[in-house]
Amino acid sequence: MKSNVNCHVTIEYTTSFHDTDAMGVVWHGNYLKFFEKAREALFQKYNYGYKQMMESGFLWPVVDARIKYTASTVAEQTLQITAELEEYEHRIKINYKIVDAKTGKKTTSGYTIQVAISATTQEMSFVTPHILLERFGLSE
Amino acid sequence: MKSNVNCHVTIEYTTSFHDTDAMGVVWHGNYLKFFEKAREALFQKYNYGYKQMMESGFLWPVVDARIKYTASTVAEQTLQITAELEEYEHRIKINYKIVDAKTGKKTTSGYTIQVAISATTQEMSFVTPHILLERFGLSE
Amino acid sequence: MKSNVNCHVTIEYTTSFHDTDAMGVVWHGNYLKFFEKAREALFQKYNYGYKQMMESGFLWPVVDARIKYTASTVAEQTLQITAELEEYEHRIKINYKIVDAKTGKKTTSGYTIQVAISATTQEMSFVTPHILLERFGLSE
Amino acid sequence: MKSNVNCHVTIEYTTSFHDTDAMGVVWHGNYLKFFEKAREALFQKYNYGYKQMMESGFLWPVVDARIKYTASTVAEQTLQITAELEEYEHRIKINYKIVDAKTGKKTTSGYTIQVAISATTQEMSFVTPHILLERFGLSE
Repeated sequence: MKSNVNCHVTIEYTTSFHDTDAMGVVWHGNYLKFFEKAREALFQKYNYGYKQMMESGFLWPVVDARIKYTASTVAEQTLQITAELEEYEHRIKINYKIVDAKTGKKTTSGYTIQVAISATTQEMSFVTPHILLERFGLSE
Repeated sequence: MKSNVNCHVTIEYTTSFHDTDAMGVVWHGNYLKFFEKAREALFQKYNYGYKQMMESGFLWPVVDARIKYTASTVAEQTLQITAELEEYEHRIKINYKIVDAKTGKKTTSGYTIQVAISATTQEMSFVTPHILLERFGLSE
Repeated sequence: MKSNVNCHVTIEYTTSFHDTDAMGVVWHGNYLKFFEKAREALFQKYNYGYKQMMESGFLWPVVDARIKYTASTVAEQTLQITAELEEYEHRIKINYKIVDAKTGKKTTSGYTIQVAISATTQEMSFVTPHILLERFGLSE
Repeated sequence: MKSNVNCHVTIEYTTSFHDTDAMGVVWHGNYLKFFEKAREALFQKYNYGYKQMMESGFLWPVVDARIKYTASTVAEQTLQITAELEEYEHRIKINYKIVDAKTGKKTTSGYTIQVAISATTQEMSFVTPHILLERFGLSE
């Protein structure tokens, strides 16, 4: 993951039986949940968790998501999930990388792109609201 | 399912791969989704779907749920799910029965209990709001 | 969606309350479930549903997925989901398009890429197994 | 929770945005996932995690589940989930209690009942297999 920004976080998540599918591995769609857990930790690190977002008057819907699967994972496997901010000026792009906590072997990567929407007017913001830049230490 | 009420509906739902777990069968928690699909159809039948609920000023959180598993189900299996109103005076109790669509064999049963809460004050209603009785044809 | 192949299917799915999130719209990760429902219908149309896959000795894990969100959807909204095979020679690429069933307005699009893996050796097949080409009418 | 056994565990889980529904609270069905996370920790504590279960030749499907909702929970709320073995002779009954980690206020309780099934014959065991009793220190 390449980014000039330098806002990132790594969390651990242990998969559960309910994350798996009939192939005996974690169902491919569930990695968006793991990405979200890391994204939530990233936003919380910069004091802009879900509650602060609501208070700021902006929503941040995901408008684009990509997931690449390198290796499968199973139930009761501990994963390290890294979320790193790559872009922030007009929209937020966060890259993700998931590795097995024991071996460090990469299992999954991907990204999500979010835009800011006014909670009151539902209008999209074409520049990132100042509050996010401030919280993440990106304002000049 | 025994009820003097006589408000019920039966829907079909075909399970998907993402409903399954590593045992090769539908994960036990997903039946609450199937119950919900039948409950939604029941409320819509009586013109009290999600949108009408919101407009009526009441929310109906589930406060108690039970699921009994008689037989497992697999991916791409078509199920018939029946939801039937059993109680309505102080709270809503809905019974569910799931059978295999081809064989009629019972796979799952259970119930949910919901109470009415004012959308504005969040206060619980100790009698069922008139609007529900009216819509379901239960008012005198 | 552009494809020279001509294997496609369109299904309807009505969203449920459990598909939504605290923003009041369908949670972004759940569209991979909707894609899967259309993909399952596509495979079943060509007599290669989950059971037939198992019997054929191949598994088809998703190795890449992309989702683009054009408009949000809500609970109890009926969607039309189209799945169309775009590539098949070395891997399967399926494109998806979701529109509102009433208005035809596009809400979501994306793709998934799957590779064939031997159920016995877990080895990846670098060409698509003959059985799939045969079932889909793509063999010469 | 009353039990003469004395096999229990308490874990912490922080809810995510994807756990919520359009009412702004955690969707009622997701508590079965939280119960499962605590149950997995309980079994692992006694060296009988998912992998060990598979090796022991027994599966443990849930045949009955109940959930009682005392208070709702929201996104990014840390919960303490306790799982405690109540019965074990013919079937396993585990009780659950979820409290808010900060205030200790109860939000949810319930139970699951599981029976042992032979992984090879799929036949149900009417007494609990010795391996479980041994691992949990319940054999005499």
